[in-house]
Amino acid sequence: MTATIDTTTDQFLGELGQQLRVDSVRATSGAHSGHATSSMSAADLMAVLLGRHLRYDFDWPDHPGNDHLIFSKGHASPLLYAMYKAAGAIGDEELMTFRTLGSRLEGHPTPRLPWVDVATGSLGQGLPIGVGVALAGRRLDKQPYRVWVLCGDSEMAEGSVWEAFEHAGHERLGNLTLIVDVNRLGQRGPTRHEWDLDAYARRAAAFGWHTVEVDGHDIAEIRGAYDEALAESDRPTVILARTRKGRGVRAVEDREGMHGKPVPDEEEAVAELGGVRDLRVEVERPAAATAPRRAQGVHADLPRYTVGDDVATRNAYGEALAAVGADREDVVALDGEVADSTRSQFFADRFPDRFFECYIAEQELVATAVGFQVRGWTPYVSTFAAFLTRAHDFVRMASVSRARLSLAGSHAGVAIGEDGPSQMALEDLAMFRSVHGSTVLYPCDGNQTAKLVAAMADLDGISYLRTSRGKSPVLYGPDEDFPVGGSKVLRSSPDDVLTVIGAGVTLHEALKAADSLADEGIRVRVIDLYSLKPVDAATLRRAAEDTGCLLTVEDHHPEGGLGDAVAGAFSDGGPVPRLLRLAVTVMPGSATEAEQLGAAGIDAASIAAAVRRHAAGHGTV
Amino acid sequence: MTATIDTTTDQFLGELGQQLRVDSVRATSGAHSGHATSSMSAADLMAVLLGRHLRYDFDWPDHPGNDHLIFSKGHASPLLYAMYKAAGAIGDEELMTFRTLGSRLEGHPTPRLPWVDVATGSLGQGLPIGVGVALAGRRLDKQPYRVWVLCGDSEMAEGSVWEAFEHAGHERLGNLTLIVDVNRLGQRGPTRHEWDLDAYARRAAAFGWHTVEVDGHDIAEIRGAYDEALAESDRPTVILARTRKGRGVRAVEDREGMHGKPVPDEEEAVAELGGVRDLRVEVERPAAATAPRRAQGVHADLPRYTVGDDVATRNAYGEALAAVGADREDVVALDGEVADSTRSQFFADRFPDRFFECYIAEQELVATAVGFQVRGWTPYVSTFAAFLTRAHDFVRMASVSRARLSLAGSHAGVAIGEDGPSQMALEDLAMFRSVHGSTVLYPCDGNQTAKLVAAMADLDGISYLRTSRGKSPVLYGPDEDFPVGGSKVLRSSPDDVLTVIGAGVTLHEALKAADSLADEGIRVRVIDLYSLKPVDAATLRRAAEDTGCLLTVEDHHPEGGLGDAVAGAFSDGGPVPRLLRLAVTVMPGSATEAEQLGAAGIDAASIAAAVRRHAAGHGTV
Repeated sequence: MTATIDTTTDQFLGELGQQLRVDSVRATSGAHSGHATSSMSAADLMAVLLGRHLRYDFDWPDHPGNDHLIFSKGHASPLLYAMYKAAGAIGDEELMTFRTLGSRLEGHPTPRLPWVDVATGSLGQGLPIGVGVALAGRRLDKQPYRVWVLCGDSEMAEGSVWEAFEHAGHERLGNLTLIVDVNRLGQRGPTRHEWDLDAYARRAAAFGWHTVEVDGHDIAEIRGAYDEALAESDRPTVILARTRKGRGVRAVEDREGMHGKPVPDEEEAVAELGGVRDLRVEVERPAAATAPRRAQGVHADLPRYTVGDDVATRNAYGEALAAVGADREDVVALDGEVADSTRSQFFADRFPDRFFECYIAEQELVATAVGFQVRGWTPYVSTFAAFLTRAHDFVRMASVSRARLSLAGSHAGVAIGEDGPSQMALEDLAMFRSVHGSTVLYPCDGNQTAKLVAAMADLDGISYLRTSRGKSPVLYGPDEDFPVGGSKVLRSSPDDVLTVIGAGVTLHEALKAADSLADEGIRVRVIDLYSLKPVDAATLRRAAEDTGCLLTVEDHHPEGGLGDAVAGAFSDGGPVPRLLRLAVTVMPGSATEAEQLGAAGIDAASIAAAVRRHAAGHGTV
Repeated sequence: MTATIDTTTDQFLGELGQQLRVDSVRATSGAHSGHATSSMSAADLMAVLLGRHLRYDFDWPDHPGNDHLIFSKGHASPLLYAMYKAAGAIGDEELMTFRTLGSRLEGHPTPRLPWVDVATGSLGQGLPIGVGVALAGRRLDKQPYRVWVLCGDSEMAEGSVWEAFEHAGHERLGNLTLIVDVNRLGQRGPTRHEWDLDAYARRAAAFGWHTVEVDGHDIAEIRGAYDEALAESDRPTVILARTRKGRGVRAVEDREGMHGKPVPDEEEAVAELGGVRDLRVEVERPAAATAPRRAQGVHADLPRYTVGDDVATRNAYGEALAAVGADREDVVALDGEVADSTRSQFFADRFPDRFFECYIAEQELVATAVGFQVRGWTPYVSTFAAFLTRAHDFVRMASVSRARLSLAGSHAGVAIGEDGPSQMALEDLAMFRSVHGSTVLYPCDGNQTAKLVAAMADLDGISYLRTSRGKSPVLYGPDEDFPVGGSKVLRSSPDDVLTVIGAGVTLHEALKAADSLADEGIRVRVIDLYSLKPVDAATLRRAAEDTGCLLTVEDHHPEGGLGDAVAGAFSDGGPVPRLLRLAVTVMPGSATEAEQLGAAGIDAASIAAAVRRHAAGHGTV
């Protein structure tokens, strides 16, 4: 049957909740896996939202006026898919493909479905990203769409959730509603606060949120809570809903040990829930809205540095970012309270309305940017490269979300000098190279940095740029091109005994070494490998054929960085040259930049010594 | 002069505060870098603590009764070092080595100094670790020492801080005092809440903490606050101190743009602060305390699995951990609310007093373990491997802290099947390999897992064990040894055309491929590379010499994992074999384990196909 009754009545919404439960049971039982009970606890909450409050055009997922619904508790995907079915977006046949090879209905939602903004399943990420979407609504899009986030109670233990509470409270995001499905039971057992809704309410209120506590199975109460959230324009609202995990099926309801699995008896459960239904909801469509303009700039006004001048690549990052921002009004910048160090301050000075201070909360920093790109903005995120490790899981999930995201990490490596190891990024290249589909760039001079910063705006996926604290001489003219995936051969002769490959600070050390070795009559090729991923395999292969040995030098731990990138370029079964690697194997302390590079064995003297050993010993050190 | 007056009077403590400021100014000016103003704001807070409330024997840093003082705002290291000088632990000459090559007085504190428990400088880590130390005091050591943590106000934005608030509040850690130096100014400008102490107090109180608000430059108020904290035995206390950054020096006091640098005029500043002093504090020593027993077990009772049985390595992890726990009472286990999945539940069942449920808060999970090892306990941390990325920065800093820490990540790779990419660890090997001094282990069967779990208890630094969700046949007998840094050659003949190198699930696929290829008359060597770091370079080199080509197969992204580890073993300038690499380059969806391995091209069929191509084409694919 297709419902012809008023689909906004409480009676209909109650029936709809049961249908969402039944379909969650059917999908998980059909798949022999998945989270039935976690779906059933939130079914009434979602029935009311879908039937009465959500504004969404399922035929036009990119409608600029659409609300955003983010299932932070991504394991409740059966419930989400049941909602899509009730809204007519998918059919029952597709629903029953849940968790099978090739299905869009994955175990946890991903944007393979056009109505899913971001992948969830790593708990505590939906709210932080939702804050980004809501902030875009208020300060960038200036559109009246609302953001609805469904969280589980277990994930309220994640610090990222409280970074988001703080951010949303401070920004007074009245367009954001968080629904917490307080079903009392985590995966292993009871949560810290079980059904103590007040415990959550006290915390949320302290962070500046409007709080509502409801019985999450009482349609009228839920309806009232959403109405209250809609009426609150100046503060975000959290609806704390007391629910029962597995609600409606005695064999699993409020029982431990029932997480993440189908109900034991599908037929019995469906009968207990009143049988299969086929209710359809005509979800109300959003008001007309205008899509924001999305410029594709030509980057005509990039900064131009004079060859030989001393420029820090972090400075070039900030200046280039400001130039890109001038060309493209879709570009926004975010920073973790170190804009004066990363130099995103240059952008902030010119475009204060498109700059977002996210304070020292790197997870929320990245999540906000993910939220911005959901709305079509082009975000650049910056902080110290070392502290981007704080957001590793958010970056990982952003790749599953097919997000377009540019990140810049400053203060790379031991070269930062006196501040010591806590501030030194020595693992960042490994982290970003390992991200699916990522681009990893590490420029050595100002003009190269500027070109790469501009290029990032048009890259898909996760792009990472590593910048340096200290100044270094400009090597390239401002009109030189630096394609992503390319490299530059800076020294080359027919007599090269070896190829030195560096990037960033070590490229300069390599050049110094090459020039001093040339005085001794030892010639080496030098390659600037500014693109670590994708890597310029063709140039490396030519160097291998010509010189027989590649020496990589990097201001990074030996694992996962430049050396691994070069070796990885030869994993096609073809001949592999001899390989030598200089990297940071010591635990640094405080010292000057030059002392640090020397102590780590990655300065010009160390490079020259390694080359001499190779030249003398025919390939062994 | 050496003070002969009563060093606990407010007058003395005020003078001591000025001395700490003067010495902070002198150290930073001498170094031409460092955080003078951030030290000066907290000087009175620390003077009172040092002079009256801290119980610490500086001659005996390992005294089991010592209090613990953690500078979460590690950039205020000049203040900490000035305290050490005032306590007689270091001399003025060493103070003035601040930030120079070879000095123990690094830009941010590290345990190169015997009085420093953990490295700080990545903000928001000191409190989470302090919670671990305090929890050890209450539930493991059962000793009356207290934990004092000094935070800045900027770092209160970090979610990890609120994970710690939640943990400490829930555990009612009355032995923990947090001092927040609310100096209003972050690095770039004002903090979100500036001097709104109530904003912090509301939040802290909501998380179950006792709160005290004071003028951080009023000695009597500070003294009263500490007394109040000492009197509160059933709740942690946070002292919110309103302070002025750069207090006492007009040129910098409460001014923006003065973060992270010396004062502009040292002489003027020292004069303004009343000149150089040489006050000495006899810090009160702790009461006698007994050091806990620290067994070095022989692991006689490890589980023994029968060759051919199907065992999940995560199960073997849990069972072995319980066995190690039976042998060694210093072993403790912590989990992020997934003990039923990681199987640390087996340990929890046998040793509930040494098991710690840390809920879904991976930063606090790792931080608590770091705190435990500060007290000499031997922690094993487990959660899904994918979610350990959440704690990347804590792991990174733990290595700077020279921490001894064992981590186990379950649910590795696409082999987990239907749950999809959000739950799949495909970057964890890269992350852990890149950690300084780490050990990375990836067993393929039950007996191997058990031996490695036992070995981890005696390893220095950060150790990581990757376990699998699904079952696989036991390959090795229970008496076989698996040294860290070793490998096993499982198939070998004089006719091997190539060497296949796998670990975990891909090792089993490699064996299947080898056996089916053998039926076709193609022989391959198979190596089980269970130790990715350190890696068994000798065995790899022999395989290279014998077979000429190494094919790595891994359930991980191509970057930073097994393939990179193998290639890295040949970076000594010697001859390098041909290299082939199979790894996960697709974005997975949901599917069965077998389908996932096939879709990713890392199953037996894919391996066999790659070998055949190599055998046919003499080394190119």
